[in-house]
Amino acid sequence: MASNLRRKQFALSVFDMAPTAAAALEELGASRASSPAELARCSSVVMTMLPGPREVREVVLGADGLLAHLAPGSLVMDTSTVDPATSDALAAACAEKGVGFVDAPVGRLASHAERGESLFMVGASDTDFARVRPLLEAMGSTIHHCGPPGSGTRTKLVNNHLAVLLCTLNAEALALAASFGLDLERTLEVLHGTTATNGQLKVNWPQKVLAGDTGPGFAIDLAHKDLTLIVEAGNAERVPLPMAAAGRETLSSARARGFGGKDFSALLDAQCDLSGLPPPRLKAGTPPG
Amino acid sequence: MASNLRRKQFALSVFDMAPTAAAALEELGASRASSPAELARCSSVVMTMLPGPREVREVVLGADGLLAHLAPGSLVMDTSTVDPATSDALAAACAEKGVGFVDAPVGRLASHAERGESLFMVGASDTDFARVRPLLEAMGSTIHHCGPPGSGTRTKLVNNHLAVLLCTLNAEALALAASFGLDLERTLEVLHGTTATNGQLKVNWPQKVLAGDTGPGFAIDLAHKDLTLIVEAGNAERVPLPMAAAGRETLSSARARGFGGKDFSALLDAQCDLSGLPPPRLKAGTPPG
Amino acid sequence: MASNLRRKQFALSVFDMAPTAAAALEELGASRASSPAELARCSSVVMTMLPGPREVREVVLGADGLLAHLAPGSLVMDTSTVDPATSDALAAACAEKGVGFVDAPVGRLASHAERGESLFMVGASDTDFARVRPLLEAMGSTIHHCGPPGSGTRTKLVNNHLAVLLCTLNAEALALAASFGLDLERTLEVLHGTTATNGQLKVNWPQKVLAGDTGPGFAIDLAHKDLTLIVEAGNAERVPLPMAAAGRETLSSARARGFGGKDFSALLDAQCDLSGLPPPRLKAGTPPG
Amino acid sequence: MASNLRRKQFALSVFDMAPTAAAALEELGASRASSPAELARCSSVVMTMLPGPREVREVVLGADGLLAHLAPGSLVMDTSTVDPATSDALAAACAEKGVGFVDAPVGRLASHAERGESLFMVGASDTDFARVRPLLEAMGSTIHHCGPPGSGTRTKLVNNHLAVLLCTLNAEALALAASFGLDLERTLEVLHGTTATNGQLKVNWPQKVLAGDTGPGFAIDLAHKDLTLIVEAGNAERVPLPMAAAGRETLSSARARGFGGKDFSALLDAQCDLSGLPPPRLKAGTPPG
Repeated sequence: MASNLRRKQFALSVFDMAPTAAAALEELGASRASSPAELARCSSVVMTMLPGPREVREVVLGADGLLAHLAPGSLVMDTSTVDPATSDALAAACAEKGVGFVDAPVGRLASHAERGESLFMVGASDTDFARVRPLLEAMGSTIHHCGPPGSGTRTKLVNNHLAVLLCTLNAEALALAASFGLDLERTLEVLHGTTATNGQLKVNWPQKVLAGDTGPGFAIDLAHKDLTLIVEAGNAERVPLPMAAAGRETLSSARARGFGGKDFSALLDAQCDLSGLPPPRLKAGTPPG
Repeated sequence: MASNLRRKQFALSVFDMAPTAAAALEELGASRASSPAELARCSSVVMTMLPGPREVREVVLGADGLLAHLAPGSLVMDTSTVDPATSDALAAACAEKGVGFVDAPVGRLASHAERGESLFMVGASDTDFARVRPLLEAMGSTIHHCGPPGSGTRTKLVNNHLAVLLCTLNAEALALAASFGLDLERTLEVLHGTTATNGQLKVNWPQKVLAGDTGPGFAIDLAHKDLTLIVEAGNAERVPLPMAAAGRETLSSARARGFGGKDFSALLDAQCDLSGLPPPRLKAGTPPG
Repeated sequence: MASNLRRKQFALSVFDMAPTAAAALEELGASRASSPAELARCSSVVMTMLPGPREVREVVLGADGLLAHLAPGSLVMDTSTVDPATSDALAAACAEKGVGFVDAPVGRLASHAERGESLFMVGASDTDFARVRPLLEAMGSTIHHCGPPGSGTRTKLVNNHLAVLLCTLNAEALALAASFGLDLERTLEVLHGTTATNGQLKVNWPQKVLAGDTGPGFAIDLAHKDLTLIVEAGNAERVPLPMAAAGRETLSSARARGFGGKDFSALLDAQCDLSGLPPPRLKAGTPPG
Repeated sequence: MASNLRRKQFALSVFDMAPTAAAALEELGASRASSPAELARCSSVVMTMLPGPREVREVVLGADGLLAHLAPGSLVMDTSTVDPATSDALAAACAEKGVGFVDAPVGRLASHAERGESLFMVGASDTDFARVRPLLEAMGSTIHHCGPPGSGTRTKLVNNHLAVLLCTLNAEALALAASFGLDLERTLEVLHGTTATNGQLKVNWPQKVLAGDTGPGFAIDLAHKDLTLIVEAGNAERVPLPMAAAGRETLSSARARGFGGKDFSALLDAQCDLSGLPPPRLKAGTPPG
């Protein structure tokens, strides 16, 4: 994502705990900050992309964090996947200091990000959205303005509820088909002609697990992390989510058995493994989707 | 389905416990049998469409049932949705008497059936499939030969596992979105641009629950019946199906609260009802899908 | 159970598909019938103990079954574990022929049955209960008259809902304790001093899985069968049972991985196996319970 | 708990966000601190009892928190229910400053605490345990030393996994019994004579929901909070907990429908409400347990 900003000629300062990541960007002409504080002092817009809520709160709100050093009129754009309460807390803290806040978590895969084809779900005021739009368009090909601050995070959780649980559903369905001795290609042909079809089964799976490629993509460990945020958000809102809760334990079981680092489509292999079934694969030469 | 056979000029005898159904077909030129036994004696191919496994076993295998009266060389085609063990038992009993057997459960809705646009998932030997194909093409526009006898039933269960559970997933996701205060149209636009999209959310829901039409379509009571067959089949095959099991209890809860007769997309309303959320609806004039 | 009837001097005729079982009873002075029909013709009270609903319906209600040959004024007592609809169907069919009906499923273990210490949950009219009471007291030490016909079956399902699911709960709790590195004996001491204690953890587990004895007792396959009856009965009554549904899939997963023949307390080992934890065992010399 | 310390003549300083709580203790002879910092400076042992992990981390580890002001050789005893990672983080931070740490969450009810009859699950070194023992014995009648620091918290989570989920199990079982039309007293008599019996059904329920008293006791909202800690701890340890996950959604559904403030035995009423069943109650005069 950052390299795409440089390619589009945006002035860029970077900080990363891992020096090699920052070094690669330096070669593309980015300058390098020695701390979040330094980054904040020299930037009008700061983007964060961090593992989870705890890290985001620390980097933005911490004693020596970004917000302590940003000037009024600057803006924080967080592209991490976090819980709604964290986005709301960031937005409130920024507003109090006269700093803009945008939550813009990313859809699609790492490979899209490299090509500048990410999808962004953006929560922002209209003014802040206009301000960050050129940056987002440098990094992504689809930009959704979902509503006010916090809406990007919330939309991302709704989106990933479906995307991840579609994998657990497809895993059950195709394991059942395998136990029934059904032909995989014929079964997929039927499913794609009815309302049973879905984006994971149609787009992701034929390129990944069904083609024998279980490298991430989007790892089961990350999908599990997102489901955790989703289930907690549902419980906070008093929306019972029994499907999500059952699905998370399915991922937990897959992680316990060593599938955590594999693509989330490999939930199929984890499911088949439980029942002693060979993992279903498309015959060579099957056209995708 | 039967009226389409008459429209295509097939000779037709009919029997139904409900006399009005048979009377309507008589007007289209069908002759009327007084019992399954009489039907069997005068037919070379007999089609059954019955509520569930118990009824099918009784009508086909019962003491005075079809098989007791069918001549060798005739054929039974069951279009009911039943469990695999029932289809297998029918196939075996027919084979023993030199009678062909085809399982051909139906996909899509009653409205498709009326227009001769049903989808059939067919389990049959190649010979039997060739024999029933003209009949199926009179009643449907998509005919899948899924494999040997029993494959139609099995494919139908895999298909409905996904189609029904997509509704429980979508219900959770859109209830979560509603509790988050997200805009429905924008959220759907995002979801349909990622792998979160699915046939129910894209095709069925915009015409049904999201448009305020919760009349069946495919009733929650029937979806519950199918999920029961699916969960039992999975347990018989020792394939754990925790998503299906959780989903069935979600439908059971919806039925207990009076939603059983509504379209299965109305699981959204049942879910929102649990959390005190107003049921999400598309604004008038939203283009479907 | 039958041998206890002989020991208490009841006249006894027996029929079993497995000749060795009947032969053993012949040695104790029972006479041997060549078919259910013959048994029915020579008996005023007939007891059945069969694997499940299908077998019971066939033996009692079938074309050449017990009821076809029993004289008015005789009585059928079914001690099998079946679904409520089956008990109700038997009761109705018996009533129509002037034959009494008692459902009296059995609690406790095979070892209790041998010692004449079974527990019976009895559904019967007061008259019929008085009639079978001496027989039940010959076979068991605890006889509960639960209500009218069908009440024994229903009480048994409620009882086994708890007894089986307690095992899945205890398995989760002790696996969690093991993953936490807690001392098993100290943890049990705490649990038995609070409301967390339960009959399985206190009585059955210290003698079985926690002592390293995973032979049945009551096998996971049978517990799975009972949970299936329970979940189906709940769905028929529109009582959502998400705990029972989740628990059944836990048993289904244990069966798929080869634990079906082990005692239902060995769900602990199945759970630990999923997480790569060694199965917890009491130190030698720990006093039971 | 604090008043029992005063009654046993321990010197006591107190701080509470709610001034009335502190005022009541002042009347018993406690002195009152104006902040956690002041409390830390004047105490050799500081006890905390707070709503959850976030509050405990802030009060103990925060910039102006207890640990910043405690002298080496002093000791922190946390009696809150938190996640294992929080107890471990507190223990490590205390150790680094030469301050002792004990986690000692409380079992039993508020009414026990008032009478000095609490149960404590204690994680501590042997030395620290000896040091806090007189304090614990002033407040409780049962003191379990579960192991090193962190063991008290972990044992509490295992204990509450069972205690809370027993309530969801009992709710399903008794709702099923009610839908079956079984007599409540007779059913309980059967259950308490088999391994289906459990501490909640035997001890808590006859005094609470079955007697028509649904005031907390231990509120569903708090039980939901504990289950959340338990499910998260299981997921962190890669121990799949499908029963706990299903149970938490059952509590989430009860909370959404307004049962959050009631005793956790009132999950029975929430379950019956879903199925349109009247809540089961013992007949007046039934002896408890």
